[in-house]
Amino acid sequence: MNRMRRTFILVAMALSGSSLSSGAMAAPLLLSDTAARQIAGNSDLPLLFQKGLNDAKKRVATSEKTGIDVPAPKDPGGGYSHERHKVNGQIVYDAGYLYRLTGESHYRDHARDILLRYAAMYPSLPLHPERKNQSPGRLFWQALNESVWLVYAIQGYNEVRDDLTAAERKQIEDGVFRPMAEFLSTGSPEMFRKIHNHATWAAAGVGMTGYVLGDERYSDWAIDGLDGDGSSGFLAQLDQLFSPDGYYTEGPYYQRYALLPFVVFAQAIDANEPDRKIFERRDGIVAKAIAATVAMTYEGKFFPVNDAIKEKGVDTSELLYGAALGYRLTGDPVYPAIARIQGETVMTGEGLALAKAAQTNAAMPTPQSMLLRDGPQGDQGGMAILGMGKGALAQTIVAKDTGQGMGHGHFDKLSIMLYDNGHEILTDYGAARFLNVPSKQGGRYLPENDSFAQQTVAHNAPVVNEESHFAGDWKEGQKHWPTMRYTRFSDRLNAVSATIDDAYPDAVLTRTSLQFRPGAEAEPILLDVVEVDTDSAQPVDLPFWFNGQVTNLPKSLSIRTDGLTPLGVKNGYQHIWNLGDGALADGTGRLTWLTGGRFYSLHTLAPPASKLALIRAGANDPEFNLRPEMGAMVRTRGSGKTRILTVLEPHGRYDPAAETTVASEPRIADLKTVRLDGALVVQMTTKAGGTIQAVIADNPSETVRHDLRHGKLRLQWNGPVALFDGTGKRIDQPDG
Amino acid sequence: MNRMRRTFILVAMALSGSSLSSGAMAAPLLLSDTAARQIAGNSDLPLLFQKGLNDAKKRVATSEKTGIDVPAPKDPGGGYSHERHKVNGQIVYDAGYLYRLTGESHYRDHARDILLRYAAMYPSLPLHPERKNQSPGRLFWQALNESVWLVYAIQGYNEVRDDLTAAERKQIEDGVFRPMAEFLSTGSPEMFRKIHNHATWAAAGVGMTGYVLGDERYSDWAIDGLDGDGSSGFLAQLDQLFSPDGYYTEGPYYQRYALLPFVVFAQAIDANEPDRKIFERRDGIVAKAIAATVAMTYEGKFFPVNDAIKEKGVDTSELLYGAALGYRLTGDPVYPAIARIQGETVMTGEGLALAKAAQTNAAMPTPQSMLLRDGPQGDQGGMAILGMGKGALAQTIVAKDTGQGMGHGHFDKLSIMLYDNGHEILTDYGAARFLNVPSKQGGRYLPENDSFAQQTVAHNAPVVNEESHFAGDWKEGQKHWPTMRYTRFSDRLNAVSATIDDAYPDAVLTRTSLQFRPGAEAEPILLDVVEVDTDSAQPVDLPFWFNGQVTNLPKSLSIRTDGLTPLGVKNGYQHIWNLGDGALADGTGRLTWLTGGRFYSLHTLAPPASKLALIRAGANDPEFNLRPEMGAMVRTRGSGKTRILTVLEPHGRYDPAAETTVASEPRIADLKTVRLDGALVVQMTTKAGGTIQAVIADNPSETVRHDLRHGKLRLQWNGPVALFDGTGKRIDQPDG
Repeated sequence: MNRMRRTFILVAMALSGSSLSSGAMAAPLLLSDTAARQIAGNSDLPLLFQKGLNDAKKRVATSEKTGIDVPAPKDPGGGYSHERHKVNGQIVYDAGYLYRLTGESHYRDHARDILLRYAAMYPSLPLHPERKNQSPGRLFWQALNESVWLVYAIQGYNEVRDDLTAAERKQIEDGVFRPMAEFLSTGSPEMFRKIHNHATWAAAGVGMTGYVLGDERYSDWAIDGLDGDGSSGFLAQLDQLFSPDGYYTEGPYYQRYALLPFVVFAQAIDANEPDRKIFERRDGIVAKAIAATVAMTYEGKFFPVNDAIKEKGVDTSELLYGAALGYRLTGDPVYPAIARIQGETVMTGEGLALAKAAQTNAAMPTPQSMLLRDGPQGDQGGMAILGMGKGALAQTIVAKDTGQGMGHGHFDKLSIMLYDNGHEILTDYGAARFLNVPSKQGGRYLPENDSFAQQTVAHNAPVVNEESHFAGDWKEGQKHWPTMRYTRFSDRLNAVSATIDDAYPDAVLTRTSLQFRPGAEAEPILLDVVEVDTDSAQPVDLPFWFNGQVTNLPKSLSIRTDGLTPLGVKNGYQHIWNLGDGALADGTGRLTWLTGGRFYSLHTLAPPASKLALIRAGANDPEFNLRPEMGAMVRTRGSGKTRILTVLEPHGRYDPAAETTVASEPRIADLKTVRLDGALVVQMTTKAGGTIQAVIADNPSETVRHDLRHGKLRLQWNGPVALFDGTGKRIDQPDG
Repeated sequence: MNRMRRTFILVAMALSGSSLSSGAMAAPLLLSDTAARQIAGNSDLPLLFQKGLNDAKKRVATSEKTGIDVPAPKDPGGGYSHERHKVNGQIVYDAGYLYRLTGESHYRDHARDILLRYAAMYPSLPLHPERKNQSPGRLFWQALNESVWLVYAIQGYNEVRDDLTAAERKQIEDGVFRPMAEFLSTGSPEMFRKIHNHATWAAAGVGMTGYVLGDERYSDWAIDGLDGDGSSGFLAQLDQLFSPDGYYTEGPYYQRYALLPFVVFAQAIDANEPDRKIFERRDGIVAKAIAATVAMTYEGKFFPVNDAIKEKGVDTSELLYGAALGYRLTGDPVYPAIARIQGETVMTGEGLALAKAAQTNAAMPTPQSMLLRDGPQGDQGGMAILGMGKGALAQTIVAKDTGQGMGHGHFDKLSIMLYDNGHEILTDYGAARFLNVPSKQGGRYLPENDSFAQQTVAHNAPVVNEESHFAGDWKEGQKHWPTMRYTRFSDRLNAVSATIDDAYPDAVLTRTSLQFRPGAEAEPILLDVVEVDTDSAQPVDLPFWFNGQVTNLPKSLSIRTDGLTPLGVKNGYQHIWNLGDGALADGTGRLTWLTGGRFYSLHTLAPPASKLALIRAGANDPEFNLRPEMGAMVRTRGSGKTRILTVLEPHGRYDPAAETTVASEPRIADLKTVRLDGALVVQMTTKAGGTIQAVIADNPSETVRHDLRHGKLRLQWNGPVALFDGTGKRIDQPDG
């Protein structure tokens, strides 16, 4: 008796009557026999699990009610046939799992009937009429969508396969699964051989089809590559697409998308070929990739670097599998917390365990500071996450010092973001795109994605000569990356420093960002030092795009009241309105804004002849494709070493509902720097007269002892950064 | 034995030891003996009640820890001495109630010690150094703040008074309560005689002081006016400041503020002079005023008409008393729902009952359609609220056809707002003000409040000749108001129509707004008809300020890509950037935007030569005092009757997290009007080819039978408005 029949009989002994064939025994994919029995026999399923089950039931009920439609492929993304095929793939998946978990035969029949319709149509399908790129599909305009369809449908099919007739199985497998698996592998070799997430989706679909149909060719192609030598395929993708820290080169938005086929296929490999020890590969890279995905979030939303849709967060369906597997592999309490945000989970044993854990153990842990190195060997820059404070509302600074991240990468070397108190404060624009909105060019990336969102000036990154990094050529960018100088993480002082010498032909960019708090209860402050080293005199711009309403600006600024013009004519500048600008007296100035009931003061210390401009996105935007975001831009002209120092200080509280406002003025009153031998001293004087001195050593080695005189003080420390009070006492090491 | 001692002994029999004096028996204000005993003896207080109690305990603990500070009056609003005195008043209140409810003597001592400090300082205080307006205070820059202080402090004092020594009582009463009550009444006769909420605060403070000190002069002045003839004082305020429907002439933002002294003092009058039957006055005006305040909200936030801070909602502390008393007087289930949003309640018997109800009965009821008439006799226009749909996310349209509302009123006759799906869609700017932010002119109303926020063009209201209503003179506006032509409310069709002939010297403005749904499950649609009747040819503008990202705009618009200039030079136009404009082909055009995951299409049908402009607030705003809100403005030139017809249609869903977009295109494809004998027929044709016909009769009388031929159809109805389908079947009366 096969496993399917066992389960079936267990949960539905009195039903049946249908003509079950004994059939060939299918391979388990993500739902093990044990788990299926556990779930099917459980009348008290945890809430999150029940929610996932109920949602699937609703979707299938709707599909059963409206009837099956398998239209001829016709529309691009967002159009009817495209969306319908997506839904059908999902329904096969849902109905398959539900059949397994409830034993109700109408689920099996619905999945079967849909698949038979595809089997009748698929063999004769030419390439899709709306194909646009190099990897077209037949059912969909892109092969990618076809792979996704296969990943879902093959899972659903696997759960009903044992209980179909041999004729039905043959019809479905010969009609759709074999030809689709072959179309997506040997039929699309260029795509299938790529080291790219599109190929991972294909590998997962093709490989799982191999397990289900008992055709090892498919699973071998998928795992070891078409050529069988590991030069492509799933293992090569695992080895090359993730860094040793689990960072996916395109960034978190694509990582959560890419992750799903990795997670799903790894689980299927583990179930079918345990000897491959897939979860031990690269020191547990699958678990690390899941953990990295989750780490790159704030308040449940992904850091929107590169071509990201900002609304995307951990509640995305793609991460349901990831959270469930992450919890199985690590037991990390972050996953039950994530599951709570997700509100549901997958219909597997892992989902059940996660849902159980989420019932009692679901507080979001405090964000951890970490460096996620980029590059297969971890030597292509990285993303540093600096977290300080308590709970999910702690301050988080993100230093994006990664590699380019392919065609969806932005020209934002050394860009930073800052989150605080539950809000984005220093922002990243993300992508200029309205997903699936037909009137917005069918939901594609808009022209402004290229002309603005990807450009350097759209980021909190240094711009030299009003040009974008790598002259805006991502293929050139792909060859270079920042060097991580160091990261240091402690309770009161986090630091990251990176440098890149080839973003521009004649400029070395270095950025060092410190997150510190002068006391255990103080609010964290950002101290940011950007250095641009050029041979010839060139304009240097440093934008800080922020989210907030200005409450105070330097008096020297001349705000344009009766006419606005664009800041420039190219490289993104043409999309920026110059709201006004003015000289910074002695290179210093302070801008304060209000975000989510808290004030943020940006203190600037730049070279004497610098200017500050206030800017807003939206010029040359005839279709309103851009959001009207605001920024402040420090503008100077550098030759030799140009240093722009910034302190971003959160302070006070504005509660218009309670009518209370406190500390709307910043504490820091004065900012000075002094160059000592081998170190920069940044001296911040508070209104109350206290001083905080941050030292940044040129040589970051931990073994070098620094011992400097600064006025009457003697500053002694090891390593790249330290913090002292006005008496020379070290204050970043509470126990030191 | 006095009531205080009874309670005290009840809850703290074992404590004591302090030198309790028998003292004079105080009057109950808001906390009755019965309630105090109920609360003090209750070890299982409901959550919301416990929260209010705990918050008060925390505030007092902080005050006890940091010590008493009663600084010399020095700062204006937002400054230290101002805020400190506010806090001290609150602490006296908290400590007094806590003493009564816990019997812990340190609470009594803390209240007493604070009051003794005030008693020592107050008699010698001159007028406040920062006084600005006609009603200065001594402790505060405005008498208003002083009245508020008194309203709180006298309540706290009342709860400890019985247990102070006679000498302490004399010192406190002679030092602060008597001189303050007299300063705020006979010492500020002009202010005290006003029919204005500032005078209500004064009346409440002075009147309650009278009850506590047993001095009937004070309470009589407060209730019957300084002259004792009812020409001023609390009763005159109750009679004149609220309309018969409980609408307060300055609008909801001020109503929730004004409400507190009405509620508090009415409760105190009821407890001390029950023969006055204060809750029966004007057919229960106190209960109606509370109900109206709550009705003028969406998602818990007040409609931000007039000089409102938009963040204000029902969770404002001022409404805690209102919700508690409203529940006592009416038992309406809206109050427990409100209490849940508030998260706490007042430390009275009413608060206890409300908190108990909120434990089980707290779903927010569906908003009710209603007309709140304005004016003491209810004949000065009104605010119509049109609600349709289920739950708190139902669509709500607000027609602001009220009187001017005094100096904080805006020049927004016949303005409308629309809320849908939990979001503001057609917006009202509210006030240009950052409450208590020193860098924003000390938190005062900003110059742009006058030059923009109050002007007609800042509202969704018709503008003739680019001038504001009443030439922007509120005193002139105070003499006029719209005439409510009719309101009609039903399940599928709500309507409001109002007209005003003196907002401009040479123009009659009429607006009729219908909210309808073609079927019981359909989403409600706004159909809005603005008519401007002028003798001479004059420009007519109709702005629709909206909250959203444009996804589709008429092709005929020429969007300004490389330069923006203000729309005009005065009357608010100088603060508006013209983002671009263009002719509306045949006067028709459609703009679609996206808000909160839903699409909104604004269909326009205007005279043939009309234009549409897209606009953004922010020109001539050198300090960034304005929010950069966006709008669409229909611009035409009228002579005779100019009609601008607008349909606002919500549709579809945009969910970038789930990557699903449906129905991003509106259903309505074509809009036509036909004038028949005595009625306007608006014909809306859907993309699917169906038609909906709305008829708007010139004569709104319910008794007139209309029987018209329209093409092949015969349309028959009574009253001002009706809805028919393409076959002439009535569809706004499911049962008719």
